[in-house]
Amino acid sequence: MSVTLDTILAAQERISPYVLRTPCLRLPGLDARLGCQVYVKAECMQITGAFKLRGAMSRLLSLPPERLSSGVVAASSGNHGRAVAYGAKLLGTSALIVMPRTAPAVKIEGIRALGAEVVLCDASQRFRTAERLCRERNAAMIPPFNDEEVMAGQGTIGLELAQQCPDLDMLVVPVSGGGLLGGVSAAVKALFPRTLVYGAEPAALPRYSRSLASGRPVTVERRDTAADALLSDTPGELCFPLVREYADGVVPVDDDFTLQGMKLLLLEGKLLAEPSSCIGTGAVLQGRLPVAPDRKVCFLISGGNVGLGQLDLLK
Amino acid sequence: MSVTLDTILAAQERISPYVLRTPCLRLPGLDARLGCQVYVKAECMQITGAFKLRGAMSRLLSLPPERLSSGVVAASSGNHGRAVAYGAKLLGTSALIVMPRTAPAVKIEGIRALGAEVVLCDASQRFRTAERLCRERNAAMIPPFNDEEVMAGQGTIGLELAQQCPDLDMLVVPVSGGGLLGGVSAAVKALFPRTLVYGAEPAALPRYSRSLASGRPVTVERRDTAADALLSDTPGELCFPLVREYADGVVPVDDDFTLQGMKLLLLEGKLLAEPSSCIGTGAVLQGRLPVAPDRKVCFLISGGNVGLGQLDLLK
Repeated sequence: MSVTLDTILAAQERISPYVLRTPCLRLPGLDARLGCQVYVKAECMQITGAFKLRGAMSRLLSLPPERLSSGVVAASSGNHGRAVAYGAKLLGTSALIVMPRTAPAVKIEGIRALGAEVVLCDASQRFRTAERLCRERNAAMIPPFNDEEVMAGQGTIGLELAQQCPDLDMLVVPVSGGGLLGGVSAAVKALFPRTLVYGAEPAALPRYSRSLASGRPVTVERRDTAADALLSDTPGELCFPLVREYADGVVPVDDDFTLQGMKLLLLEGKLLAEPSSCIGTGAVLQGRLPVAPDRKVCFLISGGNVGLGQLDLLK
Repeated sequence: MSVTLDTILAAQERISPYVLRTPCLRLPGLDARLGCQVYVKAECMQITGAFKLRGAMSRLLSLPPERLSSGVVAASSGNHGRAVAYGAKLLGTSALIVMPRTAPAVKIEGIRALGAEVVLCDASQRFRTAERLCRERNAAMIPPFNDEEVMAGQGTIGLELAQQCPDLDMLVVPVSGGGLLGGVSAAVKALFPRTLVYGAEPAALPRYSRSLASGRPVTVERRDTAADALLSDTPGELCFPLVREYADGVVPVDDDFTLQGMKLLLLEGKLLAEPSSCIGTGAVLQGRLPVAPDRKVCFLISGGNVGLGQLDLLK
């Protein structure tokens, strides 16, 4: 199988009892600053505070019952881990989440509060550590992005958008491994080929900009970014072909602009989004996307798990 | 005339080209803490950042053209002034706004940015100062709440809610002079008599709790409150009869609970609301309202004009 409109519709049927149909909000207060008619798909209001619940539930509900009951493991910079912990609790199994030591405290606490076991390690070691623990415990791995069931789950956002705002000119999606952009662009292009779909990634970690330019997945040097949910150094090998086929491009964004976008969304849009989720608005503020005053542009706000202390970044 | 379903429908026809139909959002992440099924009517996303635009536009558009062209004056703790300044600019006339010296800087700056003249004075002197300046300039006064056209404009929120969420069990509305509660409760009770409508006011300024108990408008001692948009010391004389007839009660709320509600709305609801707008969630946290897990309760989030510095209050 691959990720198609059919597999995304099947994922929607599986997960719809467990996830929220998040609102698509028109925010005219941002039009002047962003130079377009601004819409946001508020996945920050999703249960567990991020879109990740869609992919995690899609994968968990695809497991045979005997695999599910032996427990699940995930490696995550935060939001995927919280989604897996929530889903595991809901479905009555145990979860172990491997997180980078640098993850925000609010994310680590959120996962522990759901009853999951948390193991902290270096960001570069998180997948290796998770694989080892998964083998040792004979548990099932729930990958954060490089998985067709996970991508089909994320793609359900595209199905909702097609109903909520069918005449979008452009959709902008935060990118790390590419699971969200792959799934959502597959859905949107199947239903509305005319809508442009762009990814936005941290300029410090330009894995998609470089990979798309060279025609194959490229690994970039690990670097820090304010967008703490977008840390992958390589496109997912299952994600890359989807992004190459369906997305209209991926643009790099400097942290300064991403944080300006976060401040704009908070103070003018009245919406609390985590830094990674604001990278699309940052892309527009940095002049990286072809917006225009008469175009309807939707920003996918992927999550809102932010602590109060992190808001000091905006002062 | 008085404020009736007919005058509210007429106000809706006047103002609808100029105001946003704000979203009514379901926020399940707040259910556990508030003990009910949580909805919010997000007037913080209204143009100018608060519901006040509805009443101000309703009044401005009722003025004869020759009155409008001679300029308008308003006394305001912030949001009404911003709405009048915005409306005056839109309709091509001049605005002078009298504000208390203690108003948040973000509100004063927002009004100046719209081209209005701002005069600062003691909070207790703002209506007297505005009246004097209005006479001197032969301008038209746009009252913040004690006016039937203004209340009919605020009542349009009730019309929208009736369509967006017709089966509400309870609606909770912030109260100062009573223009919002009067207008909204008149609309809601005309359409859905079964829906309970409560007001919430600062415990430091219990003008409605006391007035309802004694059957006539009572003036209370001026005191400070974190709810900086709810500073009236007396019910509006035109508002009081409406509140008495249509609202099911007004409960006093301590600032500590209002600020807890603000933190909850921000961190779990992902919505930036100003302190005054969070008083309804504060009322529930303080145990002052008859909520239950199976009841649909909507909180009217009246505005979102908050500066980053004010968020330090929540730490």
